[in-house]
Amino acid sequence: MPQSPETNRRFVLNQRPKGEPDENTLRLETEKAPETGKGEMLLRTVYLSLDPYMRGRMSDAKSYAAPVEIGQVMVGGTVSRVVTSDVEGFAPGDWVLGFTGWQDYAVSDGTMMRNLGAAPTKPSWALGVLGMPGFTAWSGLGEIGNPQPGETVVVAGATGPVGGTVGQIAKIRGARAVGIAGGPEKCRHAVEVLGFDACVDYKAGDFEAQLEKATPDGIDVYFENVGGKVLDAVAPRLNTAARVPVCGLISQYNATALPDGPDRMGWLMGLILRQRLTMRGFIVFDDFGHLYGDFAREMTGWVEEGRIAYREEVIEGLEQAPEAFVGLLKGEAFGKRVIQVGPEE
Amino acid sequence: MPQSPETNRRFVLNQRPKGEPDENTLRLETEKAPETGKGEMLLRTVYLSLDPYMRGRMSDAKSYAAPVEIGQVMVGGTVSRVVTSDVEGFAPGDWVLGFTGWQDYAVSDGTMMRNLGAAPTKPSWALGVLGMPGFTAWSGLGEIGNPQPGETVVVAGATGPVGGTVGQIAKIRGARAVGIAGGPEKCRHAVEVLGFDACVDYKAGDFEAQLEKATPDGIDVYFENVGGKVLDAVAPRLNTAARVPVCGLISQYNATALPDGPDRMGWLMGLILRQRLTMRGFIVFDDFGHLYGDFAREMTGWVEEGRIAYREEVIEGLEQAPEAFVGLLKGEAFGKRVIQVGPEE
Repeated sequence: MPQSPETNRRFVLNQRPKGEPDENTLRLETEKAPETGKGEMLLRTVYLSLDPYMRGRMSDAKSYAAPVEIGQVMVGGTVSRVVTSDVEGFAPGDWVLGFTGWQDYAVSDGTMMRNLGAAPTKPSWALGVLGMPGFTAWSGLGEIGNPQPGETVVVAGATGPVGGTVGQIAKIRGARAVGIAGGPEKCRHAVEVLGFDACVDYKAGDFEAQLEKATPDGIDVYFENVGGKVLDAVAPRLNTAARVPVCGLISQYNATALPDGPDRMGWLMGLILRQRLTMRGFIVFDDFGHLYGDFAREMTGWVEEGRIAYREEVIEGLEQAPEAFVGLLKGEAFGKRVIQVGPEE
Repeated sequence: MPQSPETNRRFVLNQRPKGEPDENTLRLETEKAPETGKGEMLLRTVYLSLDPYMRGRMSDAKSYAAPVEIGQVMVGGTVSRVVTSDVEGFAPGDWVLGFTGWQDYAVSDGTMMRNLGAAPTKPSWALGVLGMPGFTAWSGLGEIGNPQPGETVVVAGATGPVGGTVGQIAKIRGARAVGIAGGPEKCRHAVEVLGFDACVDYKAGDFEAQLEKATPDGIDVYFENVGGKVLDAVAPRLNTAARVPVCGLISQYNATALPDGPDRMGWLMGLILRQRLTMRGFIVFDDFGHLYGDFAREMTGWVEEGRIAYREEVIEGLEQAPEAFVGLLKGEAFGKRVIQVGPEE
C-alpha cells in the first residue's frame, strides 16, 4: 500500500518485546490523514531512519529517555516535506528534518524541526552522516576518544553510519583506523571505500587472532557501539590510558537475561584501574548538543570535499520497517538503513 | 629485635602469594648494615607505610608497575633519618621521604628523595595525608570526580588515609560526603571527627538499605577504592553523568579466581551507557604528578588550618609488618597504618 493523501499509516507499540522484537511488537494502524490548525504545518514523511537506540525505547527499563508508551507511534528520525504550512520559515515543498516517527504524516508547529531548504543535495543524509549518527561519531570520537596521530582507533559496525564515520575521522586526525564488521564484503568496503587501515571480520573463526594482527601496537581508542564478543576481544588489547567512548551495545539489546558466569564485572574494573582507562557513556545531544553547529560545519565540509564517504541502504515501504529494524539489530544492514516511506516529489 | 646500627633487617619476597599473603610470602633476612660511598648517604628507616597497592607488587600479573622480584626487598614508602651524608642538600639528622622498602637501612644518592627538613611537625604524615594517599584523594577527586556544591560523594574506607581525605575535601567543596566503613566505631569517627554527613557500615545486614537512606538524591561521585559488594550497592544509585575515579579495588586483590556468574560485565557497560557515566582508572603520579606542588601547598594549608583531620595507627616493630599488612587488606586498619621501624631520635 503506497502513501496516500487521505490516510495516515502508522506503527504503534503494541506490546513490549521480550528479547527480539516480533510481529506482535508493533501494530500497523490506518487513520484519516491529520488536519492542521493555526500556526501548524503538515509534514509528509519521505525517509524514516532506523537506529539501534529504538530497541531501548520499546522497553520500560530505566534509561536516559522515556519509553514509547503502548499504543503510541514508534519514535524515529524522519526527513519529510512540507505539504501545507502556517509556520513562519517553512514553505510547502521544503525538506524538514524532524522526529515524527514511523508514520506517513505529522502535524508540527515547527518546534524541534530543522528546515533543510527546498533542494538539499542528499535529503536522506540528514539521517546519517550529516545528522545524529554522524554527530555521534564526531563528538564521541573527538570529545572522549581524542585520538592522537599514530594512535590506533578500533570501531565495530565499520560500514555503518556511526562506525564508518568514526574510522574516517580517525584517519583525518592521523590515527590508524581498524574496523570490525560482519563478513568479507563489508570488510573490503571498509578498507577500499572508507579507507580503514584494516578491517576484521567478527564472524571469522580466528577473529581474535586477526584483531591482534591488525593492532600490533595495541588499541588507544575503542569506540564502543556493540559490546559482547567484540569487547571481549578488544579489552585485553587496550593500551595504558586508552579511552573508550561508550555509544552503544547493540549485541546485548535483545538479551533477556545476564549471560552465564564467571562474573567479569570486577575483572573489568581491574582493567580500568591497571590500564588507567577512561570509559565514558554518552548520549549525543545531552552531552554534546552545544557542539552541533561545529559538527555541521566541519562534517558538511568534509563530505563536500569527498573526505568522508557514506553508504546508504534504502528500503522501500513503511510496511518493511519492522523487519528491517530486526535485521539491523542482527547486523544485517550494510550502510545506513533508511526506509523510504513515500516518494521524494 | 630492635633496630641496631650494625645490622640491616629486611623483608624480601620469598614466593608469590596465591590469594592472601601468608608466612611464606615474605622472608626476614638480616645482613650487615650497608656502607656508603662517595656521593651517597645512609638512611635509617623510622616509619614504613603500609598500602594496599603492595599486594599488586607481590604478583607478576600485568600491571602498571613492575612486580617485586623474588629475593628483592619488598617495596614501600618510608620516612627515614639521614645517618651520614655525602649528598648535597641532605645533612645528618634530616628527615627524608623516600621509597626505600621494608628494611632498616638504605643507601641513596638522593634521587627521588624528598627532604622534609630537620624538624617536621609530624614526620609520618608524609606517608599519609601529606603524601601519596593524600595526593591520591586530592587529585582523583578533584581531577576526575570534580564534585559540585550540593552533589553527593560516596567513598569507602572512610577512616583511611585516602577515603577520609576524599570525604573531607568533598565537604570543603560544598558537596555532601557519605562514607562507607566497617563497623559502628569507624562510622562514628567518620561522622564525628572527619565531618562526613553520613557513614554506612558495610558489615551491617541492612547495608544496602542504609546506603539508600544516606543517599536520597543518588550518587554523583563514587570514589572507587574497594570494589566488590560496595560497588554492587553503589552502582544502581549512580546518577546520570556521575563520575567514578577508580583508585583501587582492595576487596578483590586476594582473589584467585573470578566470582561465579552471572556475568555482569555487559550489565556494567550498559550502566555506563544509560547513565552516561565516566569511569577512569588512575595511578596518581603517572596521571597527576605535574600537580604535586599544587597539592602540597593546598593540603598543607588545610591541615594547618585544622580543616582536614587525620588518624594514624602506628604499629611498633618491623617484624609486625607482614601481619599488619594482611590485616590492612582485610579492612582491619583504623586510620592510616604505618610501621614504626625505629625510634625517631
